[in-house]
Parts: sequence; structure tokens; C-alpha cells
Amino acid sequence: MRRWNGWGDDSHQAQLADFAKALLADILGETHPLPDATMQEAIKNVPESRAPEHPLLDKSPETRVRHACGQSFPDWLEMRSGKFGSVADAVAFPETTEHVRELMDWAAEKDLILVPYGGGTSVVGHLACPRSDKPQITVALTRMNRLLDFDKESQIATFGAGVRGPDLEAQLAAIGYTLGHFPQSFELSTVGGWVVTRSSGQQSLRYGRIEQLFAGGIVETPKGKLEIPSIPASSAGPDLRETILGSEGTMGILTEVKVRVTPLPEAEQFYTVFMPDWESGVAAVQAITQGRIPLSMLRLSNAKETDIMLKLAVPEKKLSKLNMLFKFKGLTDQKCMLTFGLTGSKKQVAVNEKLANVHLKHHGAKRVLSKMLGDKWQENRYKGPYLRHPLWEHGVAADTFETAMDWSALRPYMSEIEDKVCNALKEQGIPVFAYTHLSHVYPQGSSAYTTYLFPVASSYEETMERWKIVKKVASETVVAHGGTISHQHGVGRDHAPYLPAEKGELGMSTLKTLSKHFDPDGRMNPGVLLGDEVASSTEPA
Amino acid sequence: MRRWNGWGDDSHQAQLADFAKALLADILGETHPLPDATMQEAIKNVPESRAPEHPLLDKSPETRVRHACGQSFPDWLEMRSGKFGSVADAVAFPETTEHVRELMDWAAEKDLILVPYGGGTSVVGHLACPRSDKPQITVALTRMNRLLDFDKESQIATFGAGVRGPDLEAQLAAIGYTLGHFPQSFELSTVGGWVVTRSSGQQSLRYGRIEQLFAGGIVETPKGKLEIPSIPASSAGPDLRETILGSEGTMGILTEVKVRVTPLPEAEQFYTVFMPDWESGVAAVQAITQGRIPLSMLRLSNAKETDIMLKLAVPEKKLSKLNMLFKFKGLTDQKCMLTFGLTGSKKQVAVNEKLANVHLKHHGAKRVLSKMLGDKWQENRYKGPYLRHPLWEHGVAADTFETAMDWSALRPYMSEIEDKVCNALKEQGIPVFAYTHLSHVYPQGSSAYTTYLFPVASSYEETMERWKIVKKVASETVVAHGGTISHQHGVGRDHAPYLPAEKGELGMSTLKTLSKHFDPDGRMNPGVLLGDEVASSTEPA
Repeated sequence: MRRWNGWGDDSHQAQLADFAKALLADILGETHPLPDATMQEAIKNVPESRAPEHPLLDKSPETRVRHACGQSFPDWLEMRSGKFGSVADAVAFPETTEHVRELMDWAAEKDLILVPYGGGTSVVGHLACPRSDKPQITVALTRMNRLLDFDKESQIATFGAGVRGPDLEAQLAAIGYTLGHFPQSFELSTVGGWVVTRSSGQQSLRYGRIEQLFAGGIVETPKGKLEIPSIPASSAGPDLRETILGSEGTMGILTEVKVRVTPLPEAEQFYTVFMPDWESGVAAVQAITQGRIPLSMLRLSNAKETDIMLKLAVPEKKLSKLNMLFKFKGLTDQKCMLTFGLTGSKKQVAVNEKLANVHLKHHGAKRVLSKMLGDKWQENRYKGPYLRHPLWEHGVAADTFETAMDWSALRPYMSEIEDKVCNALKEQGIPVFAYTHLSHVYPQGSSAYTTYLFPVASSYEETMERWKIVKKVASETVVAHGGTISHQHGVGRDHAPYLPAEKGELGMSTLKTLSKHFDPDGRMNPGVLLGDEVASSTEPA
Repeated sequence: MRRWNGWGDDSHQAQLADFAKALLADILGETHPLPDATMQEAIKNVPESRAPEHPLLDKSPETRVRHACGQSFPDWLEMRSGKFGSVADAVAFPETTEHVRELMDWAAEKDLILVPYGGGTSVVGHLACPRSDKPQITVALTRMNRLLDFDKESQIATFGAGVRGPDLEAQLAAIGYTLGHFPQSFELSTVGGWVVTRSSGQQSLRYGRIEQLFAGGIVETPKGKLEIPSIPASSAGPDLRETILGSEGTMGILTEVKVRVTPLPEAEQFYTVFMPDWESGVAAVQAITQGRIPLSMLRLSNAKETDIMLKLAVPEKKLSKLNMLFKFKGLTDQKCMLTFGLTGSKKQVAVNEKLANVHLKHHGAKRVLSKMLGDKWQENRYKGPYLRHPLWEHGVAADTFETAMDWSALRPYMSEIEDKVCNALKEQGIPVFAYTHLSHVYPQGSSAYTTYLFPVASSYEETMERWKIVKKVASETVVAHGGTISHQHGVGRDHAPYLPAEKGELGMSTLKTLSKHFDPDGRMNPGVLLGDEVASSTEPA
């Protein structure tokens, strides 16, 4: 069953091996967990629903708790403590576009706040509302999960916006197709969520980001229905898809999504190689992407991530054997793990592997358990977030942040970011451990994805304070280097303060004008994307 | 020297061979040209300038005539007759972003209309203003034509928005790079024009449309400066680039453009093959694009275009020899010419040619003078528009229109469009001749580009009436089949009436809201994109 207070289905239980616990003690010192609330305790804290009656609503406290937030670090603390800053007054479960329209008109009539909810996987605070004197309804789209139309010749599939990754792929696989959008949240997140947060999948190198896959659809807005037809490309004025992409629920609710699909590939393989050091690793991925070698996936871990990944995954005895192998190949503790994917016809896979290998070899790549480690990556591609559980239970807080920037900016950023983060709690004498990889590589630049760990404090409040400090340092460093505040997670509440650095004053007022155009009364997911200004207008004076 | 009343530089004079003239007589009957105005006559018609004084202005009638319009068919009639519906009161020649800012503030102070002007190649009516009681200033960006910055590592070049294609490519070639954006207007059009009209180059299959190449830049708007930073990809809210792409001067003036460039390719080759018929041609280009074979260019002529191209280009004697060759290869009058390009490293070119050939052969492609015809295409890639001159002087009016739609819509569209166009003037007993090709092919669908010819009437007014009828029929047929009103030319004035069919009511009001946000007084290129509603607000009551 889906966990109410964490990531994923409880049938998958991630574990920390004893050697991993020992390693954490080395890095972070002794750590102590905080007590978790039970569902019953959480329910006790839920206020009475203020929602008016409507046949599509579920007002039960448990349903409300289960949809109270996403998976950001502040969300996590709310779930584990059972104390939510705000719980929606009810959850609506529309099954059709018409239901959504009905809910929207009803919300206008009753002056309600609406929060669209897809898979509940947001890690940046998309899904909670600020406390408001208006009742707030979470609109869960999970029942809108069918393949509604398929245009085989044009390779366009139309889905209900609430379909989750595996259900979407299963319906496509049955007819021989794939969307190819595999974010780490794939098991839980929905196609509508991908669109409105501008998500990117692990194989975006082949299939494109969701911006490239989203061909059109239907958006119900307070101002009316927006229907975006599917057209392969157009010069007919500004592209309306781009106002919905990244709108994070502030402009309306996406109900149907047309996506560009591809026949299931004939062949697919992932490999891992080791580069001598960071510089050679970056040079190799630059050469491959700037040389337009059509791989389907590229991920380059820095030396710190490479080291911790190996130490956390491999028992000490086996590791020393592996280290001998590395040594034999001339690899030092500066080595960087590079995983890449090949997808397409058998011929294309063979050809592209050769083309990529020329660059990899040229930059000193060494193969150690190449296919086995590639397979391992594939096997565990969605498993990262589950690790938060055993870490938490061991008293370790885990979070990630990510950005993208031009190659020329990435070099100075990389030399600074981990230092900044690791020293963020230095004054308090608290260690932070951080490591980074590039997972979405473009000719122009790359994403950079940092994971960080720190000891849980002796209270929820203090743990939140620690996180706030680290998050602020990380975000400010991203912004100072000209990075986007998010490459794949979105803005939500957590990143809203940093959006103006990127969009500028006129850019921010443009986004606010757009939001106001679609949602003049500010009832659509206030507080998200555009920050507190909108949110506060819905709060009691 | 650049022609004042037609396309391109007068050093290139296109000619109609006698056999081509005979063919036109067969198709259109006897045709008679209209008398052309001289520059002196055109100047006589220019009203006195109402522009206030400003050091950046040129008010000379000749300069005003040279910037009075673009290259649409109505523009053409104005130029050839020397009677312009409207001539700007002055042309400003800013040299820096600061100059543009200064002009914009001055326009606000003096209540003027501003019309941005790049290469003057618009074929859909972007560049004239409706008659207005406010003085109108054309802002020619041609002096803003330098490479301002180059980030080698990130492959980002920053140009003044008024740089023309050849000057842009020459500055990049000097440092070993290319943008790879080659629309047919390349010789004259500018990078800023490409962005604000969402242009697409002939090798978009490799380099992408201008949407993919435009990384950021500076836009001066009546509301202030919009600076869009270069970021490889972002999930931080709606993408502001997309409000500028296709804005056609209604939101401000793009002054600096950051573009994604590529090292000059090691190898490039174009080939022409002949497909047995339209169906097999479509099947081949679908297989290649949907199979993700990275070609750099694909163009498929229908049988009618193939036939007329050969007949217009090859003298009868040589043609009969060529026809024997076709016959020997089993090709009939249903054959369709398919030209494709390969670009990249030598290895990539060789590999991709093999991959493409598998599909071409499978669908029955025959090679006849394959490399020679490919080279010929490359040699003449920008020469099409020059043909309007000898045709016009022979009494033949020539124009084109284009769209893009999903593959499933393209089949019924193709079976109808030429019939509709060719019969548009049937009631008046006037023949129209039309032929079509696909030149931008996507996995989802394709562009379709139709050229049509009809006899010039005995007056300019009547010729304009004939064009209006054909244009209306063509546009209505495009819209009825779900095509975009333009894949690569933009909206301008000519397509504005058909934009609501594509954007919907809420979509149109969104675009109007955006325009009003940046340009509250409606002084930026009124009448374009959003149609008469905006234009009329600037007209005398």
C-alpha cells in the first residue's frame, strides 16, 4: 500500500547495511532518530472540514491526511510528526474533464481554493495551501488515468492527466509504444504533473523533456476551457503550451494530455565506465553531447558521489577486491562513474555505442563491470527516494537539490557548491555531507544534482531550522552562479523566493499577469510559483 | 544593390527560358504584365513626414519607401505599383540596445507607433502599419549586426538582433562555428526576425527550429527591459522565451539574441532520389523521421511539383533523355522527388546515409543523378523567391502558403488543397496552377508548402482581388484540416483572421493580455498577429 508518511509503496523497504551505518557514523557522527507519529495521531490534528457539500468530495480525515502534502523536506517533517501546517478541507476525485469543469464553477460560486494533485511526489512544496479563511479543496486527478485516444500515424496518445507512469507505459506497451519519460518519481507521478512542473526523465537525451513530449491537451481554468490542438510545429504566434508547462496549478487544471510517443525500441542497454577524474568526465560528456551522438542517457557522478555510492553499496571485503581492480586499471580516488544508455534499433545501438566509445576512450574511460553496473543502474533507477526511510530511522536527514547552467558557469559552480553546503551548519558544529552528479547533459550545459545528508536534530522544529539554513545556502549559490533554481523539480513554495533572480522584475510581472488572466480571483494553488504575494491575498486580512 | 521593389540583390537576375514560357502558356494561357512604377513615381506618392525630430531618424522619402513593407503578395503589388497603403513617417537606425531604449521612451513621450524591421523579408504582412493619426516610425535593426559575445565552452553566441544570415554565419565561421539556420530568406533575413516570427531553416532536422536555437537575449518593451538568461533547460515556471518567440514586434523589440551554435560540420552532402509515388514517398520520410535517423534535411515534392520542376529547369531535348532514364528505372509520371541532407562528422554522415538508405530502398527509391541533383538543390537553396521577378514581368503572379499538421490530417489535406486552390478562380474562368512539397518533417507530422501561379489581371486592384480569393480558399482549407495557419512564415496581417481557429477564444485573449502587459498603449506594431482589434484602437475614432 502507498505510504501515507513517506515515499512509495510499503512493499519496497530500503535497508541500510551495517557497513553503511558505520560509514554514516564516520561522516556525520552519532545520529538519533525522532519519534514518528502514527496515522491516528495525525488524524487527531486534522481540523473539521469547512468544505461545502459536493458529490465528488471525500472529507474523511484519513483521505485528507493522505493528500495533505508532497515529498519536500518540510512535507516530510509534517508527515513524520503528524502535524500538518494545513490540511485541505476535502479531496475531490473527478473522473472526467466535465467533473473538473463542474468543480471549478462550484469553487467560484462558493469562493474556494483549489489545489490540483497528481501523484503527490512534488519535492518543492507544490501541494499544500497556506492557511486561509477560504475552504480549500485538493483535486486529485488519479481517477483520470485512461488512454483516451491514439493516433497511430501521428504517434500521438491522449491520456487523462492523472495517469501514473507505470499505467501510462502499460497502456502504451500493449499497443507497442512508449512515451519514454522516466523521472525518478516515475512509479507515482502523473503525466499532468510532469507537464505542469516541466519534468525531465532519465532518458531525456533520447525522448526529450516533457516540453518536447507535450503536444497539446485540455486545461480547465477559472476563465474557461483552453484547448490546445496537436500540431508538429508552428510559427503562429507565442506557443500556448508554454504557458501551461510549469504553471504548477496556478492557471488551471490540465485534464487531458496529448503526448508524442515512439514505438518500443528494439534494443536498449546501459553501461557504466569510470573516468580518471572530474575534468576528463566532463570533457567526455561534452564531446558526446556537443558531437550529437544520440545516446539515450548520460550520468556523471563526481568523485565524492562515486566513492560514497561504492561504499554504501558494496561490503568492505568485496570493495577491497574491487579497489584492486580499479588500481590495476590505473584509477585513483579521483575516478568518476559515468553511466550511459543506448536505445533504438539494434543497428542504431551498435553504431552509437561505437561513436560514443571513441570519445570515452579518448578521455581515458576504463571499463570495470561495465554491463553489470549499467544493469544495476537500470534496476535501481527509481529506488533512490526510498532510502530516505532507513536514513531517517537512523537519525539522518536526506534531501536533494538540482539546477542547470551553461558549461562555462558549471565549472566554478561545481568547485564551490559542495563546500558551501557542507559548511552551512558549521557555526552550530553540525556536519553536512554532500555529493553531486550530472544527469541531464545538453550541448549548452548540464543539470547538476546534489544529494546532502545531515544529522536529525533533537526536535522537529530544530531539524527544520537546519534544513532551512542548508537550503538557503544551496539556493543562493545556485542563483549566484546563474543557474536555474530548478532543472526538473519545479518552483513550488521552496524555490519561489529565488525565481525573480532568474525571471527578472518584468518577467515576474509577466507570469503574474498570466496567472491573473486565467485565475482572476487567485483561487488556483495560491502561494506556489509566484510566491507569497499571491498567497497572502487569499489569507485573512 | 538591394532591390527596392522586389526580392534580393539586383546582381542576381532570375530568367525564364523560352521553353519555360511556353510551358506557362500551356498552363495559364496568354499572360500580360502590368506596368511597374519607378522609384521616382513611388516617392511622389509619399506623404510628408509627421515624425518629430530625433537624431537616429532618416526621414528621406527613398529610405521610407525602402522600408515601407515586406515581401507578401499585397506588399509586392504596392511596390510594383509604387502606391503604398501606408509609409512610415521615418526610419530609425539604432546601433545599440540603449538606442532602442531611447527610441522607445521617446515614442511613449511623443505617442508614436513603432514597427521593428529586420531584413524586410516577411511574406505575411508584418512590416506595414495601418493608417493612423499617430506618426509611425520603422525601427530598422540592420546596424545592430555584430557578434557581441561568444561562450566557446557553452557554444552560445550573442548577436545584435539585426544581423543578417550571411553576416552571422561569416562571423561564426571565422571562429569555426555555425548556427545552421538557413531559411529560404537566409541572404536577407535577420536573427531577430527569425526569433519573433518563429522561423524554421531548411536544415531544422539537424539544427532545430529557431525555438530550439534561441537561448535568451534582451527585449526592450514599453514596460521596460526583459533580460532572458541563457540556461540549457529549466523547470522554473513558464518559459519567457516563448512569449517573445512569435511575438512579431507586438511586445517589444528584441535587441540582442543568444543562440546555440555548433562547430562547423566535418562533412555535408545532399542527395536526390525519386520515389515511385506520393504514398511511398510519405512512407519513406515517415520511416526515417519516426525511426530517428539523424538526417539534416528532407524535402519531398509531390508528383506535380516534381514534374513542373523538371520541365521548368531542363530543356525539352535533355528532358526526353532524362525521361528515358526514368522509364528505364521503372518511374512513371507519379514519381516524387525526395532530397535529403547528411551533416556531421565523416563517420556520422556515412553511418546515417546507410541507415536512411535502408528505408529509402524499402520504399522503392530510385537514384537518378542523385548527387548532381542534390548539389543543384544546395546551389539554388535561396533562389526560389527571385523567380517572382521574371514571372511577374511575364504577367504571372506567384505566391506560396504553408502549414504543418499531424500525419493523420495531412493525407486528407493533400488530397484536397491543390484542387481547392486551382479552382478558386474558376467562376471568373481564371486558371490557377499549384504544387506542393513537404520540407520540414517531424515524427508527428509535416509541414506542407504550396506554390501557386495565376495570370496577372489587367489592373493592380483586380490582381489583388484574385489573390484575396485564392488566399482565402487556401487559408480556410488549412484551418478546416486542423493545420496551423503557418509553420514558418508567421501570422502578420495576412494570417491574423485565421489565428483564432487555432488558439481558441481563451488562447486569443491570453495573447492579447500578454501584448497589453508589455505594450499597454498599443504602440508596438499594431494590427499584426492579433488582428484588427488592436490595430483599430490606434486608428482615428
